[in-house]
Amino acid sequence: MTRQIENAVTRAQEALERTRSASPAEVEQWLEAAAAALEAHAEELVLLAAEETHLPEGRLRGELTRTVFQLRLLGAETASGRHLDATVDHADDAWPMGPRPDLRRVNVPLGVVGVFGASNFPFAFSVMGGDSASALAAGCPVVHKVHEAHERLGMRTADVITKALEAASAPEGLFTAVTGRESGTALVNHPAVAAIGFTGSARVGRLLFDQACARPEPIPFFGELGSTNPAFVTERAWASRREEILRGYAGSVTLGMGQFCTNPGLLFVPALDQEARKVLSAELSEAPRFPMLTDRLAADFGETLDAVAGGEGVETVLTGEPGRSPGPTILTTTAEHVHRKPGLLGEELFGPAGLVVEYGTEDRLGSLAALVGGQLTATIHSETDEDPGPLVRLLEARAGRVLMNGWPTGVTVSHAQQHGGPYPATTAPGTTSVGTAAVRRFLRPVAYQSFPDAQLPPALQEDNPWRIPRRTDGGAS
Amino acid sequence: MTRQIENAVTRAQEALERTRSASPAEVEQWLEAAAAALEAHAEELVLLAAEETHLPEGRLRGELTRTVFQLRLLGAETASGRHLDATVDHADDAWPMGPRPDLRRVNVPLGVVGVFGASNFPFAFSVMGGDSASALAAGCPVVHKVHEAHERLGMRTADVITKALEAASAPEGLFTAVTGRESGTALVNHPAVAAIGFTGSARVGRLLFDQACARPEPIPFFGELGSTNPAFVTERAWASRREEILRGYAGSVTLGMGQFCTNPGLLFVPALDQEARKVLSAELSEAPRFPMLTDRLAADFGETLDAVAGGEGVETVLTGEPGRSPGPTILTTTAEHVHRKPGLLGEELFGPAGLVVEYGTEDRLGSLAALVGGQLTATIHSETDEDPGPLVRLLEARAGRVLMNGWPTGVTVSHAQQHGGPYPATTAPGTTSVGTAAVRRFLRPVAYQSFPDAQLPPALQEDNPWRIPRRTDGGAS
Repeated sequence: MTRQIENAVTRAQEALERTRSASPAEVEQWLEAAAAALEAHAEELVLLAAEETHLPEGRLRGELTRTVFQLRLLGAETASGRHLDATVDHADDAWPMGPRPDLRRVNVPLGVVGVFGASNFPFAFSVMGGDSASALAAGCPVVHKVHEAHERLGMRTADVITKALEAASAPEGLFTAVTGRESGTALVNHPAVAAIGFTGSARVGRLLFDQACARPEPIPFFGELGSTNPAFVTERAWASRREEILRGYAGSVTLGMGQFCTNPGLLFVPALDQEARKVLSAELSEAPRFPMLTDRLAADFGETLDAVAGGEGVETVLTGEPGRSPGPTILTTTAEHVHRKPGLLGEELFGPAGLVVEYGTEDRLGSLAALVGGQLTATIHSETDEDPGPLVRLLEARAGRVLMNGWPTGVTVSHAQQHGGPYPATTAPGTTSVGTAAVRRFLRPVAYQSFPDAQLPPALQEDNPWRIPRRTDGGAS
Repeated sequence: MTRQIENAVTRAQEALERTRSASPAEVEQWLEAAAAALEAHAEELVLLAAEETHLPEGRLRGELTRTVFQLRLLGAETASGRHLDATVDHADDAWPMGPRPDLRRVNVPLGVVGVFGASNFPFAFSVMGGDSASALAAGCPVVHKVHEAHERLGMRTADVITKALEAASAPEGLFTAVTGRESGTALVNHPAVAAIGFTGSARVGRLLFDQACARPEPIPFFGELGSTNPAFVTERAWASRREEILRGYAGSVTLGMGQFCTNPGLLFVPALDQEARKVLSAELSEAPRFPMLTDRLAADFGETLDAVAGGEGVETVLTGEPGRSPGPTILTTTAEHVHRKPGLLGEELFGPAGLVVEYGTEDRLGSLAALVGGQLTATIHSETDEDPGPLVRLLEARAGRVLMNGWPTGVTVSHAQQHGGPYPATTAPGTTSVGTAAVRRFLRPVAYQSFPDAQLPPALQEDNPWRIPRRTDGGAS
């Protein structure tokens, strides 16, 4: 146990004693304080992020806007009290299974949450990103392990946030940032940590997930581990608007140097003829290039790419100059080969590269779709008068989000968003890490039986002092 | 992989293809068919259960009523479509973080669910008990591992259910029962099984949980493992109505020969003087006695009891005749001793026995409550003009259900019920295995982005053909 973690978790536990009884309005104020602080320090933080991550300033500004918006949206959701899922069943002697006592349920914070920041979103999935924001919205204190790829930015952001929370009279210890790999392990193993939020590689994610499960008291691990985000183009869509599709694909697969969890790593088209290859090469040549997030990441990308490209049955259509700022690479293979080696569909190329599967005729799409594993997203390009129903059924069984005639990069923050999916996309398929529903991960229901009204938490008192939506006796809220 | 499991899971997977597109009304019909079939065969099943489990007929009849009611309540909940959590965000170009595409989310079945029946509830937590019923309500086919303590009843119940589902035109393979320990292991490890529901011992539960986590593709494991259900009596409550409290306790701790997960195994009182011991002995002498569920369970209970009773600092107040139908046993210890050996508070005595902790003065209650681990329930007995707030705060942080002036045995099935809690009470603290919210465990959200209306699932189509509650653009449903 590192001393850093011991201190942070102990203070977070103390904060929890206060957050347990905080009102939705108070919690919203904390999130607003964090949002306003990020806005006030936007210039400084964006410049620091650009220096440390090599991501373009424009993109970083957009990401900060997203992060601030996310805090406010989650704050508004918390203020509404909807996440408390307050449910009131009055005593009922005529309840068919036998007399029912007065029983009322409300969600309470799960406990201290450990969050691991991701390298590829230094704001939106990092210090005050989605996991931290939704844990705080649930009333859970957060100990955040800063990603080593942007430690200076991370610690500076944490400093800005901590001061803002203090100024907003939030409990001391509500948010702490820590650094170092050893801290990460200690965080997952600390007995007072109640849940983990993680976004990162399958390798590290699985390691930490295994640790969380092996604890004497296992804890929920909400991990986003990896996704190859297949996109399927029907024969007719390919015939009618091949160029438009290739243009969209080229933009999406190279966006942010391909360093997105929703990067469309797999494209299924009838055939990639010479004409199509020319179009694709031309579009890709215009993709902005900049250094990848870290040397390690660039090296890993290069190695995975070499391994996949060197495999039997895989052809290189376009090869990008390797190195720290690699150029776009496109590989192709065939349906036959994929059926022989389905593992190919799970190889995540975390960089500006994609594998195009030439499926031949459309009757083979279904059996190919059935081979893909758990995904964050799956995409279909089809004509409006086609019925892609069978393909939709296959993909909704495998992915958290299914898109029609779009591209999966760009994940809006809203109420209906679902960013999650069956393993290995995430370790908790029933949850999302983006959108207002992300808060639910960090809550736990408690029922109160036969309590005098005055001793119930405000959310459950008969006159509903917080004016939150509640379900009463099975009716609507 | 046993052939039994391979067949059952393969058929369940085929059924899943149909349940995915089933309407809420169809699913309700399946649950109703199961409920009606149990009712129609009540006489036969209750007699068989009595023979195999030794539980009194009256209790078994009540349990069957509960099981039938549970199926209908879950059916009605499903028919309402509320569990689908349908959420519609229309496209919005003015969305503050950037233009928002049309995005709609709905819950879909998680997949094939493996359920382990419990020995102590041959109906309500067994073949067509809470886990099976809520998985089916979610649209998930179920493969149920019958508990070896009532295999004849289990297989007969499964037969009744299977025939009823067939008559109701449910998909073949929607429900299958299997037997044998080897089947259980194979079920948890089968690649096509998407989640597990389990109620049973901490030993077996943890073993299976570890297996579920260690799979190449880990799956959610909803396990109820054990709880000692502490009950705290304030000094004033003890002074004003000691006899009433002891009467209630004696009834609850011996109910069903103490074979309940909510059995109040720990009672905290100021002191158990001679007078109180006499009252308790008298009350306990009236407890009905019958053979425990299995020889193994009776032997395990005897061993645990001997170990706890033989420990330093533990005194035996009342010792019950051991054997297959053991008499009630009451042990006592002191606050001092509990602070030295807090592990004592986690020793589940699964039988008619309890540990009474003499806490002395009330200022010591808080530090004692802080020592109890995760619990299904925690109970407070206090006077109406007392403020047990601090104790409530401690207990709501540790238990799924907190009761005031009652006893935890008897778990009503309703909307506000919460049967779950932090580990070891359950392996999934955010979920319940009883009540309508139990369905949520077996669902997974899928978002549809920019879909033409006709290609959306009915739950998300613009004109809401199923007339289900939906949240639209962040507003109320």
